[in-house]
Amino acid sequence: MQSFDVLVIGGGPGGYVAAIRAAQLGFKTACCESNPYADPKGEPRLGGTCLNVGCIPSKALLHTSHLYEEAAHTFAGQGIRVQGLAIDVPAMMQRKAGIVTQLTQGIKGLFRKNKVSLLPGHGRFLGREGESWQIRVGEETVLAKHVIVATGSKARHLPNLPVDNRIVCDNVGALELQVVPERLVIVGAGVIGLEMGSVWRRLGSEVTILEALPDFLAAADADVAKEALSLFTKQGLKFQFGVTIEGAELKGDGAVLRYRDQEGKEQTLEADRVIVSVGRVPNTEGLGAEEVGLQVNERGQIAVDEHCRTNLPNVWAVGDVVRGPMLAHKAMEEGVMVAERIAGQAGHVNYDAIPWVIYTAPEIAWVGKTEAQLKAEGAEYRVGKIPFLANGRALGMGAPQGFIKMIACAKTDRILGVHIIGANASELIAEAVVALEFGAAAEDIARICHAHPTLSEVMHEAALAVDRRPLHF
Amino acid sequence: MQSFDVLVIGGGPGGYVAAIRAAQLGFKTACCESNPYADPKGEPRLGGTCLNVGCIPSKALLHTSHLYEEAAHTFAGQGIRVQGLAIDVPAMMQRKAGIVTQLTQGIKGLFRKNKVSLLPGHGRFLGREGESWQIRVGEETVLAKHVIVATGSKARHLPNLPVDNRIVCDNVGALELQVVPERLVIVGAGVIGLEMGSVWRRLGSEVTILEALPDFLAAADADVAKEALSLFTKQGLKFQFGVTIEGAELKGDGAVLRYRDQEGKEQTLEADRVIVSVGRVPNTEGLGAEEVGLQVNERGQIAVDEHCRTNLPNVWAVGDVVRGPMLAHKAMEEGVMVAERIAGQAGHVNYDAIPWVIYTAPEIAWVGKTEAQLKAEGAEYRVGKIPFLANGRALGMGAPQGFIKMIACAKTDRILGVHIIGANASELIAEAVVALEFGAAAEDIARICHAHPTLSEVMHEAALAVDRRPLHF
Repeated sequence: MQSFDVLVIGGGPGGYVAAIRAAQLGFKTACCESNPYADPKGEPRLGGTCLNVGCIPSKALLHTSHLYEEAAHTFAGQGIRVQGLAIDVPAMMQRKAGIVTQLTQGIKGLFRKNKVSLLPGHGRFLGREGESWQIRVGEETVLAKHVIVATGSKARHLPNLPVDNRIVCDNVGALELQVVPERLVIVGAGVIGLEMGSVWRRLGSEVTILEALPDFLAAADADVAKEALSLFTKQGLKFQFGVTIEGAELKGDGAVLRYRDQEGKEQTLEADRVIVSVGRVPNTEGLGAEEVGLQVNERGQIAVDEHCRTNLPNVWAVGDVVRGPMLAHKAMEEGVMVAERIAGQAGHVNYDAIPWVIYTAPEIAWVGKTEAQLKAEGAEYRVGKIPFLANGRALGMGAPQGFIKMIACAKTDRILGVHIIGANASELIAEAVVALEFGAAAEDIARICHAHPTLSEVMHEAALAVDRRPLHF
Repeated sequence: MQSFDVLVIGGGPGGYVAAIRAAQLGFKTACCESNPYADPKGEPRLGGTCLNVGCIPSKALLHTSHLYEEAAHTFAGQGIRVQGLAIDVPAMMQRKAGIVTQLTQGIKGLFRKNKVSLLPGHGRFLGREGESWQIRVGEETVLAKHVIVATGSKARHLPNLPVDNRIVCDNVGALELQVVPERLVIVGAGVIGLEMGSVWRRLGSEVTILEALPDFLAAADADVAKEALSLFTKQGLKFQFGVTIEGAELKGDGAVLRYRDQEGKEQTLEADRVIVSVGRVPNTEGLGAEEVGLQVNERGQIAVDEHCRTNLPNVWAVGDVVRGPMLAHKAMEEGVMVAERIAGQAGHVNYDAIPWVIYTAPEIAWVGKTEAQLKAEGAEYRVGKIPFLANGRALGMGAPQGFIKMIACAKTDRILGVHIIGANASELIAEAVVALEFGAAAEDIARICHAHPTLSEVMHEAALAVDRRPLHF
């Protein structure tokens, strides 16, 4: 029977990073993975949802569709002449698949380099044997002193809207469409819905997004959500809020969706494809949690403390399967923390400084608190808000939309939140995260030189604007 | 006679920012400008070289030519089908001109908003009158308690290579070409030469860059320079180093350049257009410096201390006309510092944390010290260097070239320099500047959450690599 210091169940971002870090710290480490995204050799593919059917493939499609849109709408005005613009969806998908394969193979390379054993198969708790946990992995049983559960999450489905990943798709099918659907209906106006809606709208779909909640992007700052809704609507995305899905009938190569609108009226909508993106549920099935008494909370998440300790000795859990935002980078930080805790180090995650990103165009990113959160806390704060419209780099890029909004404590000037909607928000947010981690004041950012011409100058101006002294607005 | 608290001579980035900040601080402020980039109304245009014939128009052309190159080289592989790709140079130039006009008009708006008087005309010291300086501005004479000289710089020309801005161009003509030259020769492999060479190569020119120095990008970290030379050469730019220009004969709609190569052999090179980008010289002509005893150093720069004070009472100088890198953002920081010093505040510029950017593809950016500088100082340091090749965002963008190299003190782990060659380096450097300003350790950046998937994760990995524990490489 194989025996390990650390066994990680699940090879997604939280799991593979935990395994690599544990191995770096000198532990005999294994990571088991059994996913449905099997590669041609029949081996499980590492990287989890994020790499195989999430962040990475969607970014590849967003890139291609963004260039397609540039060709369709901005080339002429810039003097670039082209004819016969068309999209070859299978070729686009093939490029995407190539990137996914390269990266998932890359993680195998990292496992070899760091001496992490990859065990193919589903991991399941059997019980204790002395100081170790007995874990069933596929057909084998292995022993591990420490177990890190990193089983991730799967798409939430609606009971009256069965997903076949042909007509009605979740994230898996949405990333595999082989033609541009004429009419695409997206259920759920969250990150995945907006990103997928953007891809297919750019390529020619008529996209309608149905959202159950009355508000748009409730987690984001209200100013950002408002600007986003306005810009996405101008781009051609159609939104309906407060919608209740009643059901769907497949009809030819499409579906008819039945729903109640905000006023409670019954409506139908024909669609060639439907994408269901209504959140994700933690993967705890088949883990043997109940059998060994691993505590799962009322939301189906494995219950953990701030250091990702479960109720069982030497059992940890990280990533989408525990509380907190379902973000790959949050999972990775937890993976590092747990490996270091196992080594007796002081690993920790600052949950107050985890950035959020939505890869629409413009992109959306934020870190820290929204204005609404601060109001609810009764905090006194000052806001600096600067549009990209006056920024030379943004104009050069043809991306004058959006703004950066910085919120700082009215008394101490400490930055409490930074909210960006604009080109490259995903990269610009890094500066804000560092500032937050250092407890920076808005005045600090205002006094730091920002390269010209860059989009990051808008961060500089937003910091100056907190003190009502912007130079370029 | 008009009288001001503060008169700024020159409306470029250093000047207009100094004027705005001075006005914000309550000073009666004017800014005089007389530039050759006259707008249709005959008014001088604010923004200086940077905005009118430098950073901003070049970024517009780089953006368009980058998209053109995407269309030519990456569209097919992504499934985007186009035919008949062609560039309409006048249309590209018109878009560029529109952006410049919008921004230069924007500065006039900022002057109105902040109550800065714009005085059209060249500024020239006449002498003292009581506590004030008498300055001739065009046909008028005005008085000012404080004078800030921000006259900028102009392209350096070579005596044996006269610039006519038709066949032989400096930055001004290089940004106004109306056809793609078949054969373009660029004299000087600095920032401007590389950016202009990139634009026209992408659009179809055969570009040869002749450089007097034996080394490429001597100011950059040697690893970055080496990678850049390799990538740019692969892109099709031809380089010759150690070249001495002997002269040029105009011939038809072109020129024949005579030069000595590295071995001292005489060579000739036919070109349809020549761009001379061999550095810039400070603008002190016609300023009346000699008449009032304003000290100019042996390099032609107005001599100033670390707070941009000249040898004359209440006379300051900022930007390209003084020591230090000729960078718009350095000039702006100096402008703010001087305005605040005049107000008795403690304005300062940290010259050790000014970022450099080159907007080629991939972009190049750095802040802090190079490895060569640290070696020369005898410093003990550790290096973390991570390629973009393993980064999911970079692959999604089709931009796997380049790396981030972080250098930290071997004893304290404090970050000493960050050197980037890669997509969006211009924006990624902002995080590094903030880190440097906060005296961050590489370990700090290693422990800060970076959004996934972003290019900024390479910064994170570079920081981890300083301690030999990268997670993704």
